[in-house]
Amino acid sequence: MLGIELLKDIQSDLKVMEKQLAEHVQSTSPMLTKASLHLLKAGGKRLRPAFALLAGKCCGGTLERLMPLAVALELIHMASLVHDDVIDNSLTRRGIPTVKAQWGDKVSLHTGDYLFAKSLLLISRYDNPRIAQILAEVSVEMSQGEIQQIATAYELNQNIRDYFYRIKRKTAMLISASCQLGAVAAGAEQKLERSLTKYGHYLGMAFQITDDILDMTGEQQEFGKPIGSDLRQGIITLPTIYALRHSPEAAELASLIIKREKTDTDIHQAIEIIKRSGGIQYSFFVAETFIAKAKKELQLIQSPEMRNTLTRLADFVQIRKF
Amino acid sequence: MLGIELLKDIQSDLKVMEKQLAEHVQSTSPMLTKASLHLLKAGGKRLRPAFALLAGKCCGGTLERLMPLAVALELIHMASLVHDDVIDNSLTRRGIPTVKAQWGDKVSLHTGDYLFAKSLLLISRYDNPRIAQILAEVSVEMSQGEIQQIATAYELNQNIRDYFYRIKRKTAMLISASCQLGAVAAGAEQKLERSLTKYGHYLGMAFQITDDILDMTGEQQEFGKPIGSDLRQGIITLPTIYALRHSPEAAELASLIIKREKTDTDIHQAIEIIKRSGGIQYSFFVAETFIAKAKKELQLIQSPEMRNTLTRLADFVQIRKF
Repeated sequence: MLGIELLKDIQSDLKVMEKQLAEHVQSTSPMLTKASLHLLKAGGKRLRPAFALLAGKCCGGTLERLMPLAVALELIHMASLVHDDVIDNSLTRRGIPTVKAQWGDKVSLHTGDYLFAKSLLLISRYDNPRIAQILAEVSVEMSQGEIQQIATAYELNQNIRDYFYRIKRKTAMLISASCQLGAVAAGAEQKLERSLTKYGHYLGMAFQITDDILDMTGEQQEFGKPIGSDLRQGIITLPTIYALRHSPEAAELASLIIKREKTDTDIHQAIEIIKRSGGIQYSFFVAETFIAKAKKELQLIQSPEMRNTLTRLADFVQIRKF
Repeated sequence: MLGIELLKDIQSDLKVMEKQLAEHVQSTSPMLTKASLHLLKAGGKRLRPAFALLAGKCCGGTLERLMPLAVALELIHMASLVHDDVIDNSLTRRGIPTVKAQWGDKVSLHTGDYLFAKSLLLISRYDNPRIAQILAEVSVEMSQGEIQQIATAYELNQNIRDYFYRIKRKTAMLISASCQLGAVAAGAEQKLERSLTKYGHYLGMAFQITDDILDMTGEQQEFGKPIGSDLRQGIITLPTIYALRHSPEAAELASLIIKREKTDTDIHQAIEIIKRSGGIQYSFFVAETFIAKAKKELQLIQSPEMRNTLTRLADFVQIRKF
């Protein structure tokens, strides 16, 4: 949980969410329950439920109305993480062994499918068909983004638009949908729904840019995964795009990136070149711009406390170290 | 396509379905479109769309009303196949290279997620929320069944109930749901919906039992996958359960099954023991019983032609060789 005073407005709600999450992953198969609970106990920021609950509350939604949605969003996020671990061959996440490491690929894959199906079950009980529609659209786009990331790996000739296309699908769309669906479930009017959707979008973009910066600058222990993992997989993120364009050492950087097998020294060298190029500062600047745009969308929110919380949440995304 | 005169009532409908299927997998990512079309061209019996269309027509549904459902059901089935190929390490299916073989695990996994999400998008546009609910429930159960198959691999102490639990989730539920949802989409009355649901269930059970028999007796070329693949993975199916109980060579069979690395000779020997035990005939008998039960459910259907088609479809499941 985002165990910060930041979320004090919904701290007790998030506790309820956490409890319901544990209940919903209970399966008739003990192995499936164990794998799901393992994933759940590994923690996480519970950012998507938090956004759905906050956005829904801004629009006058009750906890009872918003809770199934909040749980469903975290289940979708968990499903995508467990699938990612299969294909990224990740053995630890957030410092603890992954489901893949403990139970293997087969169990991980079906656990992901199971969690996703469970989220559909929760969503299918809402009377408003737009909720399922929006989530289906986001799921389609998320898969397209993932494939695009694979298709463009080791592809040096990418620009910022290509990068934005990918991170929108990888991260921003689900965060945006979390805000939007909180509003939809609460029965918000169109204008407010649209503002919250945009808020989530901008915040999600900033979140992923920060994630990509942390992949180069983070402390492994805090960040929970090895530094330079994007570079290792040939994934070209914003700091790298900047360095490839502006660094006098761009040619050396390029030759390091396209290596299919990289040593720790290669990774270290590549990151140093990127840092010297100013790619990190530039990326921070882009993230800041998105955060500023996100905050601007909060003007329609009536409650000063809610507006304040969403503003501080935006600030958190920018300064986070994990 | 089930290119048999059997389906002449809906042959032109299935052609429309096939065309729409190809349209719906079009993606903004060329790699994703290629992988999906590859999967589509590999063919398949299109059994689930056929059941949905036939059941829906029995209940007076129009093609326009039933088509999105038919396409969605095949997309879900395709998604589960492409995920299966990842974890089963299958390099060919129906005699042609799998998506996994051609594009690798990452692309396969996301192609599966993409096809599933596409099916949700189609389903989310129906006004009747029961359609999404039933599919979500089936998806949850399908994952539970898959995990159960993993949890019980190499487990000699299984009985018929354990086996039925698994094949219900692996196969029967989606076929049953195809029939049921055809009826639901067509606005059938409860009694007819229930009969068609049961028809699909019994047929699905018979279908998987036949599949498990073919895994031991089929011709590789016709069946499209190597013989004995269940035994190789330690999956205990009905003929094996029978043999383990009734064969005088049960001890030898057991020692062959629990081997983690089996030679072709091991597989051959195990199948010979199972055949000598009468396990194949017994399984045929069980499948026949299910087929008879399926046919009994067709009494409520008004149209003699539709009843006839569904009866012959039941017969086909029993005598098929692929």
